[in-house]
Amino acid sequence: MNAPHELQLRVEPRPVPAAMLEALRQRFGERCSTARAVREQHGRDESPYPVTPPEVVVFCDSTEEVAAVVALAHQHAVPVIPYGTGSSLEGHLLAVQGGVCVDVSRMTQIVRLNPEDLTVTVQAGVTREQLNQAVRDQGLFFPIDPGANASLGGMAATRASGTNAVRYGTMRENVLGLTVVTASGEVIRTGTRARKSSAGYDLTRLFVGSEGTLGVITEVTLKLYPLPEAVSAAICHFADVRSAVGATIQIIQMGVPVARCELLDLNAVRFINGQSKLGLRESPMLLMEFHGSEASVKEQAETVQGIAAELGGEDFQWATTPEDRTRLWTARHKAYFAGMTQNPGCRTVTTDTCVPISRLAEIIDDSVREADASGLPYYIVGHVGDGNFHLAYLVKEDDATQRAVAENLSHRMVQKAIALEGTCTGEHGIGLHKMGFLVDEAGVGAVDMMRTLKRALDPRNIMNPGKIFSL
Amino acid sequence: MNAPHELQLRVEPRPVPAAMLEALRQRFGERCSTARAVREQHGRDESPYPVTPPEVVVFCDSTEEVAAVVALAHQHAVPVIPYGTGSSLEGHLLAVQGGVCVDVSRMTQIVRLNPEDLTVTVQAGVTREQLNQAVRDQGLFFPIDPGANASLGGMAATRASGTNAVRYGTMRENVLGLTVVTASGEVIRTGTRARKSSAGYDLTRLFVGSEGTLGVITEVTLKLYPLPEAVSAAICHFADVRSAVGATIQIIQMGVPVARCELLDLNAVRFINGQSKLGLRESPMLLMEFHGSEASVKEQAETVQGIAAELGGEDFQWATTPEDRTRLWTARHKAYFAGMTQNPGCRTVTTDTCVPISRLAEIIDDSVREADASGLPYYIVGHVGDGNFHLAYLVKEDDATQRAVAENLSHRMVQKAIALEGTCTGEHGIGLHKMGFLVDEAGVGAVDMMRTLKRALDPRNIMNPGKIFSL
Repeated sequence: MNAPHELQLRVEPRPVPAAMLEALRQRFGERCSTARAVREQHGRDESPYPVTPPEVVVFCDSTEEVAAVVALAHQHAVPVIPYGTGSSLEGHLLAVQGGVCVDVSRMTQIVRLNPEDLTVTVQAGVTREQLNQAVRDQGLFFPIDPGANASLGGMAATRASGTNAVRYGTMRENVLGLTVVTASGEVIRTGTRARKSSAGYDLTRLFVGSEGTLGVITEVTLKLYPLPEAVSAAICHFADVRSAVGATIQIIQMGVPVARCELLDLNAVRFINGQSKLGLRESPMLLMEFHGSEASVKEQAETVQGIAAELGGEDFQWATTPEDRTRLWTARHKAYFAGMTQNPGCRTVTTDTCVPISRLAEIIDDSVREADASGLPYYIVGHVGDGNFHLAYLVKEDDATQRAVAENLSHRMVQKAIALEGTCTGEHGIGLHKMGFLVDEAGVGAVDMMRTLKRALDPRNIMNPGKIFSL
Repeated sequence: MNAPHELQLRVEPRPVPAAMLEALRQRFGERCSTARAVREQHGRDESPYPVTPPEVVVFCDSTEEVAAVVALAHQHAVPVIPYGTGSSLEGHLLAVQGGVCVDVSRMTQIVRLNPEDLTVTVQAGVTREQLNQAVRDQGLFFPIDPGANASLGGMAATRASGTNAVRYGTMRENVLGLTVVTASGEVIRTGTRARKSSAGYDLTRLFVGSEGTLGVITEVTLKLYPLPEAVSAAICHFADVRSAVGATIQIIQMGVPVARCELLDLNAVRFINGQSKLGLRESPMLLMEFHGSEASVKEQAETVQGIAAELGGEDFQWATTPEDRTRLWTARHKAYFAGMTQNPGCRTVTTDTCVPISRLAEIIDDSVREADASGLPYYIVGHVGDGNFHLAYLVKEDDATQRAVAENLSHRMVQKAIALEGTCTGEHGIGLHKMGFLVDEAGVGAVDMMRTLKRALDPRNIMNPGKIFSL
């Protein structure tokens, strides 16, 4: 095992030559910016790292424009960092080697919607909320929901998932194809609109989760789903986290096709109440959602209610109107910001471990014991149906000791998750923050293979360099 | 578009040096064979290519043994071809550059079953039937079912799927992790037992579908599923293929979670009747299966019956007992062999196109018209719920003209599928047979990227060389 990853960044800028800057200005005019405010805005994400700005930011409107920027960067061996909405949590966007930030947030076209095939192609800057608005009229939805209103390019790049993954899978399962600008500035298409294929290497899934280190994703072809005939959300309270997790394990093992199954511990409920005035009973709870026909939703709910009751679940409450459901899920999604606003001056250090479902109670128990002993404010929210949960420590922005304590506990939890045959990151990615953990988890041989792939596809190491692993 | 792929193989053997042969004999004794019968048995698959044997066959019992063979092959720059059950359809196993065949069919251990997590790890030689027997007592099953009783290593290597994919996905979605012997003879593990992960590049899915060209898969960790509470199969007859396909399209667009949805055309039904004496009504039909609770299966069946009736579906018949269902599915799985036994002296040239579901009727219509005009015996079976179908031509073994006609029609169908944004292969893989089609489908840039990956991971080009693309 490696030492906890140093939060002190090693910044080694590779300057943008004047000729390249001039070429960018010629082509992009005001959409090429070196203004400090713009660079600083693009030099941070939701991680606790210090702002580390790129040297220049270019706002692209098309795949061709991205290709032009990357071709120049390739020629001058300058780093390229793709930027969507800035909602990463692991330092993915920080310009640790300087370079040019390719902002795709203006690439918001729904390129092609094929409701009859349940597919859509979008530009990388389309956010999941924009997509869902665009397809709702057709009776369709896109289920992957990481909480933040992230861009679909960014979600693909980090292999994002979230609350619906227990039923609908992650970006890994829901991306059919991509348009990618390679490290040399060429444009390739991966995948087709067919639901499955055995045609050669799975380039689509090589880029999904590659965190911008192999190329820039500029378009994404996605699976869509018919809006369920019936949707019902429910909350259920438990005396302790262990009982809530025990109920989850049984729900999964019985094969109930639950659409969402989220754990909130007592602290999370309190922060949410403080923020959203929901008046939730202050105890650990499960927040669930069921999708299907009227009869199937009713049946799922009855099964789950039976399981929960056996484990002491109480106060089962339903939210069947869209408004009530939205209120609950909005509150859940705001847990992250609620934690910070209820603890002023704090930033969040969050874990993202994911373990086989049968080991979930064990790791959560251990983690709670250690978190309680630490004295730091914390809360737990979890996509527990997948075995994935986040323990978020709230640490004073300038308190190095608190941060070190949180990082140390986070490291211990990752070690535990790996020992239980799980992963250090269910959905946030490696970025800068988990580079040491990746070696612990995958082993030197597998990480060396990743390095070999990186060197082969990006020989000048210009694509988001310094992330996922050191070279 | 390229010319139809030449069935004349270009065989360029790279001899196994005496020193390597001696080392293999020392270590493996009688499990190292150069007997002609053994080599010939390993030099063919279910494709219409002539037998092309390896120089030596080694029967391995463990990952370590595979690693030892590959390390030797790496040292001597000798080709390595992994072999499971020999059920490939596209020439994957043919030793076009000679070398050593690594037979993993004795690697039949269930390494670890974790019913509480719905996961299992098996050696690569375990077949899907063996796996299902091993997990049935636990109330679990593994759904991927390509028809043949293939090995799970081989199924992973070709990204196989089959009848259940419409509900449960393909090997792409159901492999959690792999043990792989790399081209230099090292052993790496990819993935974990967690259901999802964002930890670095998706090496698992790089190897799934790589057809033995990047390394040898020696162990596979898979998702399992609880046996459904209720299972029901149904057949429904239609006046023509178009109506059957129309019903399928509506079933999928409505989001009915059908577990299997198979098309059999009139010819397929006749061949099956001839072989299995099932006495099926001789008309195009859909063969479907529904999984779920009693109530959910009933509801799905009613919905589907309604859709089918609107499109002229007749004679809806149920098979609710396991025996009746097995009889039907066994007959379906034997269609391939029924075609050949009902057409003595013939081999099968089969297509494997997969298109977006809304284009399925169009491509099947065109293909039927061309097949009818050709005068060749043919039949259609299809995993139509995925947009995937197989049109199988039966050509006299030694009739070059018939084969050329079939290959030409197959090529036209692939062109059509690609024009409709589909793929040349839904589940069989590229092998030797579809190498030209891959370039048509993916484009030169994407295939060049695949070549770059191959060269990076297998610089001596020893892993199943000459397959998927030329170097």
